[in-house]
Amino acid sequence: MFIKDLWYVAAWSSEVPAGKPFARTLLDTPVVLWRDSRGQVIAMDDRCSHRGAPLSTGRLEGDSLRCVYHGIRFDTRGHCVEIPAQERIPPNLDVRHYPVIEQHRWIWIWMGDPAKADPALVPDNHYLDDPAWRSLEGYTHYETSYLLIADNLLDLAHLSYVHANTLGGSEDIAKVNPKIRLSDRGVHVERWTLDTAPAPFVQLVRPYEGKVDRWNHYDFLLPGIFLMDSGMSPAGTGAPEGRRVDAAEFRSTQALTPESAESTHYFFAQPHNFLIDRPEITQSIHASVVKAFQEDHDMIHSQARNLRRASNRDFKMGAIRADEALGKFRWLVQKRLDEQQQAEAAAAAASPAAARPEKALA
Amino acid sequence: MFIKDLWYVAAWSSEVPAGKPFARTLLDTPVVLWRDSRGQVIAMDDRCSHRGAPLSTGRLEGDSLRCVYHGIRFDTRGHCVEIPAQERIPPNLDVRHYPVIEQHRWIWIWMGDPAKADPALVPDNHYLDDPAWRSLEGYTHYETSYLLIADNLLDLAHLSYVHANTLGGSEDIAKVNPKIRLSDRGVHVERWTLDTAPAPFVQLVRPYEGKVDRWNHYDFLLPGIFLMDSGMSPAGTGAPEGRRVDAAEFRSTQALTPESAESTHYFFAQPHNFLIDRPEITQSIHASVVKAFQEDHDMIHSQARNLRRASNRDFKMGAIRADEALGKFRWLVQKRLDEQQQAEAAAAAASPAAARPEKALA
Amino acid sequence: MFIKDLWYVAAWSSEVPAGKPFARTLLDTPVVLWRDSRGQVIAMDDRCSHRGAPLSTGRLEGDSLRCVYHGIRFDTRGHCVEIPAQERIPPNLDVRHYPVIEQHRWIWIWMGDPAKADPALVPDNHYLDDPAWRSLEGYTHYETSYLLIADNLLDLAHLSYVHANTLGGSEDIAKVNPKIRLSDRGVHVERWTLDTAPAPFVQLVRPYEGKVDRWNHYDFLLPGIFLMDSGMSPAGTGAPEGRRVDAAEFRSTQALTPESAESTHYFFAQPHNFLIDRPEITQSIHASVVKAFQEDHDMIHSQARNLRRASNRDFKMGAIRADEALGKFRWLVQKRLDEQQQAEAAAAAASPAAARPEKALA
Repeated sequence: MFIKDLWYVAAWSSEVPAGKPFARTLLDTPVVLWRDSRGQVIAMDDRCSHRGAPLSTGRLEGDSLRCVYHGIRFDTRGHCVEIPAQERIPPNLDVRHYPVIEQHRWIWIWMGDPAKADPALVPDNHYLDDPAWRSLEGYTHYETSYLLIADNLLDLAHLSYVHANTLGGSEDIAKVNPKIRLSDRGVHVERWTLDTAPAPFVQLVRPYEGKVDRWNHYDFLLPGIFLMDSGMSPAGTGAPEGRRVDAAEFRSTQALTPESAESTHYFFAQPHNFLIDRPEITQSIHASVVKAFQEDHDMIHSQARNLRRASNRDFKMGAIRADEALGKFRWLVQKRLDEQQQAEAAAAAASPAAARPEKALA
Repeated sequence: MFIKDLWYVAAWSSEVPAGKPFARTLLDTPVVLWRDSRGQVIAMDDRCSHRGAPLSTGRLEGDSLRCVYHGIRFDTRGHCVEIPAQERIPPNLDVRHYPVIEQHRWIWIWMGDPAKADPALVPDNHYLDDPAWRSLEGYTHYETSYLLIADNLLDLAHLSYVHANTLGGSEDIAKVNPKIRLSDRGVHVERWTLDTAPAPFVQLVRPYEGKVDRWNHYDFLLPGIFLMDSGMSPAGTGAPEGRRVDAAEFRSTQALTPESAESTHYFFAQPHNFLIDRPEITQSIHASVVKAFQEDHDMIHSQARNLRRASNRDFKMGAIRADEALGKFRWLVQKRLDEQQQAEAAAAAASPAAARPEKALA
Repeated sequence: MFIKDLWYVAAWSSEVPAGKPFARTLLDTPVVLWRDSRGQVIAMDDRCSHRGAPLSTGRLEGDSLRCVYHGIRFDTRGHCVEIPAQERIPPNLDVRHYPVIEQHRWIWIWMGDPAKADPALVPDNHYLDDPAWRSLEGYTHYETSYLLIADNLLDLAHLSYVHANTLGGSEDIAKVNPKIRLSDRGVHVERWTLDTAPAPFVQLVRPYEGKVDRWNHYDFLLPGIFLMDSGMSPAGTGAPEGRRVDAAEFRSTQALTPESAESTHYFFAQPHNFLIDRPEITQSIHASVVKAFQEDHDMIHSQARNLRRASNRDFKMGAIRADEALGKFRWLVQKRLDEQQQAEAAAAAASPAAARPEKALA
């Protein structure tokens, strides 16, 4: 079960070119994304209402998409507008259409109640195309629940062990406890690691000679949007007091979107604001992050394989202090799911027939 | 569940050479096919009655087949005739044997009640070896129910979209409505597309300069035997009135045999009666059909993947006028399955023990 | 379900080098094997008690193993001894530890009640490193229950058919009936094949000119330990009376350990005591056995695939006389499992909470 009334990242803008439908499964639902004649992104169910063929293999004809199995054609709102050899078009031939917002190189989709799709709720991902920052587009696919990846992002102690040679560089990171604050949209985490080694991936592009003070401050918002202010300055130059002298700064921008209960789309970028006129610097930073995310990928998949075993059905994870942020986030997810379930049950009680189509998305 | 009391195509004759057992799963049942010393095809369960090893890995010894796990030997009727180091042979060591008819390059098998295996019920596939016609042997495997392929064959509107560059050539085909007639063995379909473009695959071997009149007339018989008279003549030369002037004619002969509920054997050939002394013509026609059937394969598998998704459990296909033939055929299949189930239930009520082995094949 | 209170082979000694953890799933339980600073093998659950990550990807630090996800560290008894950024260590962070015995190149593990792990119960595999005998290390993996492999080893009639060109050489083997004796730890089998062809694999290294007398005498002990005295002498020279003249002798030493209900680890070696100073002889014998075991692998997997089919759910194997030994062994396995289940039920009735962790291993 997924929280429906949220904006999810569906794709990088570049993944949906003009003239060609793009298929992606989101929240267990196959979706086709395409651009109309004005370049606006359209999202609808990737399933012809006739025999269930994927519309993403279809043909764009101006502001409509034709299924190329038997030739049924749909407009930008999912309305069926043509059936070969048939004049009358029955209303049940329409396909479901989803609200979409394209903003700062990401295409966001709302899979829940369209009436609640408030554009103001889209998280702030503007560092992806802010002219003072540079980053490259990252994507990876997980065969695990998005929650295991959220766990990972909510305890950066793992930088010391999983990313010893990429993002970490010292066991000091794991030895400090961050400050954590829960809001109704997510968790805010502030971690300071003082007088420590600089991160290896930074040393490749902008080396520090001595120790540094490092900060990792981030919001982790529902459903899984990671927006971090991180960086480092020479130790003792005042970073904790707000003076960022000779700093290397980043605005990591990441998003988790469940493909299914056991698979996840992972979109990421690592904007930096120094040496932005040297593309090889941006490339090096991106390559380091890709390498580090492969380290996470390996670890989280091996963890997931372990947890999926029948013999581990009764395994209870042992809580430690470092779990505080992930514990708070999982509590928030469960709260939203419980509220959603209650609302659906109430709606079903009020009108059994109307509640059905909502359930089919669960 | 499958309709049992029918002849199914088990294999091309060439797939079962002398001297070597051939394994194929039919209706969820592993079957071994082999030839006795006179060349007659024998069909029996591909499962040694001793420990369940496949007999198809065994050794032919004249008119018997020896399991090469522990050396048990069976005759052409499935009777156990030898157990090493043991004199008495218990009767329960026999394996099940099936009626078989080899006719016009196809081996037909009867998996139901042997007493009802009437040779007169074998559909007419004689175009496969009629000396006035030429064709090559086609086989492909589907990881879908045979019913999705039957749907495809029962609505040739898809020629306009799926096969635009092979068998189709014009959207006109989808714009006409065929005449449809239901019999107790299947559906008869007659489709005329007049004053239209010739089919691309015909243009490769026997090009027409102008428009043509095209016909696609076929029987689609239980369980999934497709026997078509198709072709084209220059437009307006009288084909609809029965005058086939300067015609390119075909007798497509196809058979679907369920391997399991979710996989299918597909046997096909495209006999033609023109330029039959030029093998390259036959090869070109065959290659075009293979290419077109790959187009179907891609479309039907993508449709099947879509339908299998948990999120599509509640999806109801939207009916259109072009579904008439496939709707009639699916109704006929269901009717036969219901009758079969009632007969089995009646038999089980009359004699619980005797009905068991029948059920195990369902 | 597996018999827990037994010694199982976990690995060849060489598979667990110093300084590097080794992962293997045994009885459906992921286990990590590693050596402490004295070289002693340690076995514990391959699952960090914190978030379930595999400890086998961790880092050895002297006599402890650190999980490299979040840095939790465990000692040789599975006790948690360090949690970064946390002083108090809760007792539920320990992981389960298993008794281990390393003996004659095999590492044996006891997955049941540690109080019952009597070293005297380890079967005698000393031929693996007896200085008068030579062998190489064999391992293969099965995607089948260990019981199908036990069946195979308990009826050597299959040598005549499966191994006609490797270990067999004559159908005579299948034509004799062995003497069989049941004990409370397994089955003892004695098979004499007199005046018959020598085994092809022996002819490659130590050819006989005429017929031979062959013996295959073995214990097959729970859970699946195969210890055979086999060989051959020139026919009529008195082998059945105990005179082994000009004999080629072997002490096949094999062990089956369930990985899961449907997969198995298979450890094997074929010690010989002739020409032991010529490594190419040992290599030839080993290569023959590897080839023969691939013949078994193919046969048993094809049998298993057959048995797993839904349509074979009701299939009952037909008993023959040659099944005597495997029937006795399967009876013994069932008896031990029944006793184990009764003991667990009694323990659960006496103390419901305490019985739980035992059940999780079932």
